Parts: sequence; structure tokens; C-alpha cells
Amino acid sequence: MGEFDLIKRYFMDPALQRKQAGVDLGIGDDCALLAPAPGMQLAISSDMLVEGRHFLSTVNPEALGHKALAVNLSDLAACGAKPVAFTLALSMPRVDEAWLEGFSRGLFALADEHSCTLIGGDTTAGPLNICITVFGHVPTGQALLRSSAKAGDDIYVSGLPGQARLALEVFRGNISLSESDFALTRSRMERPTPRVALGQALRGIASSAIDVSDGLLGDLGHILKASSVGAEIDLYAIDSIAARAISMPAAGQFDSKFLREMVLAGGDDYELVFTAPTEHSEAVQTAAQMSHTQVTCIGQTSSEPGLRLREADGHIAPNSFASFDHFKS
Amino acid sequence: MGEFDLIKRYFMDPALQRKQAGVDLGIGDDCALLAPAPGMQLAISSDMLVEGRHFLSTVNPEALGHKALAVNLSDLAACGAKPVAFTLALSMPRVDEAWLEGFSRGLFALADEHSCTLIGGDTTAGPLNICITVFGHVPTGQALLRSSAKAGDDIYVSGLPGQARLALEVFRGNISLSESDFALTRSRMERPTPRVALGQALRGIASSAIDVSDGLLGDLGHILKASSVGAEIDLYAIDSIAARAISMPAAGQFDSKFLREMVLAGGDDYELVFTAPTEHSEAVQTAAQMSHTQVTCIGQTSSEPGLRLREADGHIAPNSFASFDHFKS
Repeated sequence: MGEFDLIKRYFMDPALQRKQAGVDLGIGDDCALLAPAPGMQLAISSDMLVEGRHFLSTVNPEALGHKALAVNLSDLAACGAKPVAFTLALSMPRVDEAWLEGFSRGLFALADEHSCTLIGGDTTAGPLNICITVFGHVPTGQALLRSSAKAGDDIYVSGLPGQARLALEVFRGNISLSESDFALTRSRMERPTPRVALGQALRGIASSAIDVSDGLLGDLGHILKASSVGAEIDLYAIDSIAARAISMPAAGQFDSKFLREMVLAGGDDYELVFTAPTEHSEAVQTAAQMSHTQVTCIGQTSSEPGLRLREADGHIAPNSFASFDHFKS
Repeated sequence: MGEFDLIKRYFMDPALQRKQAGVDLGIGDDCALLAPAPGMQLAISSDMLVEGRHFLSTVNPEALGHKALAVNLSDLAACGAKPVAFTLALSMPRVDEAWLEGFSRGLFALADEHSCTLIGGDTTAGPLNICITVFGHVPTGQALLRSSAKAGDDIYVSGLPGQARLALEVFRGNISLSESDFALTRSRMERPTPRVALGQALRGIASSAIDVSDGLLGDLGHILKASSVGAEIDLYAIDSIAARAISMPAAGQFDSKFLREMVLAGGDDYELVFTAPTEHSEAVQTAAQMSHTQVTCIGQTSSEPGLRLREADGHIAPNSFASFDHFKS
């Protein structure tokens, strides 16, 4: 099968090309044409996934199709933007129809769920590499940024960061989990849920937001740096996330330092970490309920620079949790 | 050097982040924010370049930086759009500072020339792969499309397609060229000039356009198919392009069939092939002069489906020129 046939068969299904507001011209010309409605900004983010770095060669292609788009939608979520469209550039060693069928099925299932239309891209031969650029709408001036946290804001995280990393540790042979915990955590690693509804619900409520891809503390650090604030993190809140991440008896196998590391530095979570003034705490809970997403308050920002981990008894624990760096690990 | 340091050093130079109309938020947050002015559509295209497929591992990194953006700007040119911004996703085996310095220099030199701002992207470890998504502005409804050629339109091509392929044939050891011809054709292969000014000048004049990346006939075929027309190509015009592509004595070494193949099916040209009604022929020449770009009329579209190659004496020559396909060659 040639390049144009494969694009037509797997990526130009007319059922997937339905008319989407803001998309004036989709796939099939030199460029796609977008026109955000008046009063809207276009939010744009780009992520590249490489075999062996971001996914194992054995991953189910349908899960990979889901994840490739999910990590991009997660960036839109962190800005409070509504997904509109995406481009897909795909390099692969050969045309493997079974793989393409599964990959495109997973990709378009998630795209459909968010009414996000494929508007263009590229295919080429080469080592497996998936680059998606995603487009969303956000009312002008309402995007959630990293730079607008204020000292004294509460810090929240969605979902249960650490689960994806626990599954990775099983794959690496470092730990074992019960069958049900492995299934649960593996699904978090392979099929993350971008917090798109929560992100939009937090517009006007959160003071800053970022999505957690390299680890909770590392990504929170970007907010602190951009906003020129520090933070205290409550370790009892981190322990409570760990306790919910896997079932109780299993959690008992691991020491608290290991579980804290999973939550604070695990990576690949695609949860939102965000800040909000204390007077918005009820509004945060309402946004969480409306978007069917649990959120946990894990601490407060502070005018004192740096990030401190606070035990339940108030004393400060050492912070030795490193964030993921593609060129260091 | 870690991921964030390399982004900061090579891709966040404040001098390159100058304020660009339509870019509300650039690099450094989860998303960039664009807001096209009222009456403007945003034209979007994405291209992925893979080592060994799109460039040789020995290529000068500065030339590669130029080419990676040039092939994307060429898609904007084919729509008649004005470049505004781009994202860059980069996978590379290791942090090679000399390579990054050269690559970013070539990339930003061309970006600056077109006032095109880097607004975001991704870096990761992996086999060398460069994915750029580019954004341009075009007045609503004025984008040049593939689908609006009419039977009887003249067909034009910019520049001298075939030059890039001649250089490739030298690299492959299949032919030899004089030093000056090799330097000229190699520069076309490694540092193509996106026809951005010509594309914009052709708005309202050309009836359709596409950029030539896979070969003149193959890419023209996309226009014919999308517009439901056929075409006759004048081989004397193709021979005249070949004669200008390299110096005369050198051209005499090659038979006309070989040179026609270079022009018609060479690939990697990043020229524009476009159609215009005959009554626009003066306006086409004016657009070419205003944008300092030579254009050659190479034939006419026709209501008779298919593509025919016409010798100077009027008889139809067989068409055996295949277009480049990433999964077939």
C-alpha cells in the first residue's frame, strides 16, 4: 500500500471528517484552514512520542493511538481550552495494516469523544515516531497560565498521580502488584484520561495550571518559577493519594518513601496540578464534581522561594525527588 | 545539558521571541495562543523530516535547520498565506551542542527572514526526527486550493524543478556535474527557497496551486484530481527548464529523457505548480517579477481527463514518470 492509499484508508474516513465549528478546511490540501470565532484565542500544543522512550514496542496500537492524542489534549486541558482539531505526523518503518487499523481506531475514538477533527499531517518511512499538534479554543484572556499563581493559593492535583509509574515499575520487574492493581495502573499508563472538562471548568477559578507529564514536583516547579512563588506540600495528602492509587493490602507492601516517590516524581500522569485562591475552594470542588474528576488539595504556595515537603507533625522532610528529563535518564 | 537548558539555550533566545502580530503567547507555557485578526483564516501545515529519508546524515546542520522550516513555509506559499509562527518537535539521539548551534542558526535565519516566530514544541531523545507545524494568515476565502482549476487554464511552475534531484544523483554516484553545477544544484537540494512571496502575489490570480515535493507531475496530478480536469504538458517547456537547470555543456552530456525525468519527477523541489486563466497571464508575469521568482508556463488544463505529454511537433509522448512515494521507493 502506498502513502496516499494508507492516508485515505486509515486517516480520511468521511465519518471522521464531520464539520466542526472553527474548521474551514480539513485534510487534503497543502494547508488546513482554521478560523476561531471572534473573542476566541487558538491554543496550540505539540508533543512527539518515540518508541522506546514514551512507549514500549509491545504496546497495543489501539492504546497507543489513544495515548498519542491524550497527551496533547492534556496540554489543552492545562490551558482550559476546548479541543477543536489536530494534525498528525507519523513516521513508521513499514506499512503494517493491523497496526494502522488499531492505532487509528484508538486515536479517532478519543478524538470523537472530544469532537476534535484531524485536519492534516504527514506520513513517512522511518523509525516509529508520532508527532501530534493540537488546537483548541479559549475565550480571549481566560487561558490558564503557569505564571499567575499568588502566594497563599491552595495547590491541587487531579486524579491519582503515581499510578502510571507503578505500572512501569512492574514492567521493569522492580515490583509486583495484584492482578487488579496491575490492570488499573497499566490502564493509567497506557490510556491516560486528559482532564479536558476539568480544565475548562477551572477557567476563572484556578489561578494557574500545568499538566503533569514529567512528575508532580517537577511540573509544579514550572508554576512556582513562572509565578515567582514557593510552596509547601503536605505529605499526608501525598500519602492519601498513594493509599488510593492501589488497593490497601498491596500498598502495605511498599514503604512510604517509595510510594511518595511514585506520586511526587512518577511521571506520565497527565493529571492537572493547579493553584486557586482559598476563597475559591468551594468552586474548585464544584468544578471537580461537574467534570467527574477527583481533586486533592496537596499544599499551599508561599512567598518564601523553594519547595518544602511538610510532614503531618509540621517538620520539613528532605526533597530528593527528581523530575524526568529526556536527556538525563 | 538537560532538556530545559537546551530549549532555553538554543530555542528561546529573546531576540528571536520578538512580538509578532497574531501571536498572543509564545514558547514557555502548556500551549501557545494565536489570534488571527478579523477577516483572516489561519493556514496550518505539518511536515516531518527523518534522517536517511529526507536528508543525509552528513548534511550541514545549518542547512538542515533551513530546510526543515523551508519545506513547511513552502506549504504556506502554496496556499498564498503569510507566515506567522511555527512549532518544532525534535527527537535526537543525544545533546550535540555543535549540531544544535548550527541547526538553530539555520532555522532562525529563515524564520527571521519571514517574521515567523517559534511558539512552542517538544524535545526528546530518539532517532533524529524533525517535525515542524507552521501557521500563516490568509484573508478569508482567498487561500489558493488544489480544487479550483478550470479546464483551459494555463499551468505554470516556479523556479527550475529537477535541480535538487540532479544533486541527489551526484550523491548517489549515478552522474557527475561540474563543480559549479554541483554547488548550484546541491544548494537547491539542501537550501530550497520557499516561494512565499510568489504564493501571496498569486492570490486572486492563480486558480489553484500546490507545492512540488514529490515530483512535478505527481503533485500536479493532485490538482487535476481535486479539480476534475486533465492536462497537456508541453515538453519543449520542460526541455527549456532542463536547459536552464545546469550549464549548457554539462546538459549536453545527458539525454533528453533523463533530463525530462529530473524535471518532471525529480522531487524535493519546493517550487509552486499552479494554474491561472489565460486572461491572467500578464498578472502572473507581474506577480513573478514582484516576487523576484521566475515562472514558466508548461501547458494547459483540459476537460479531457488524464495527463498527456506533448512533443513540440504535437504528438503525445508516453508518460512513464513516477512520483515519489515514501513507502514505495
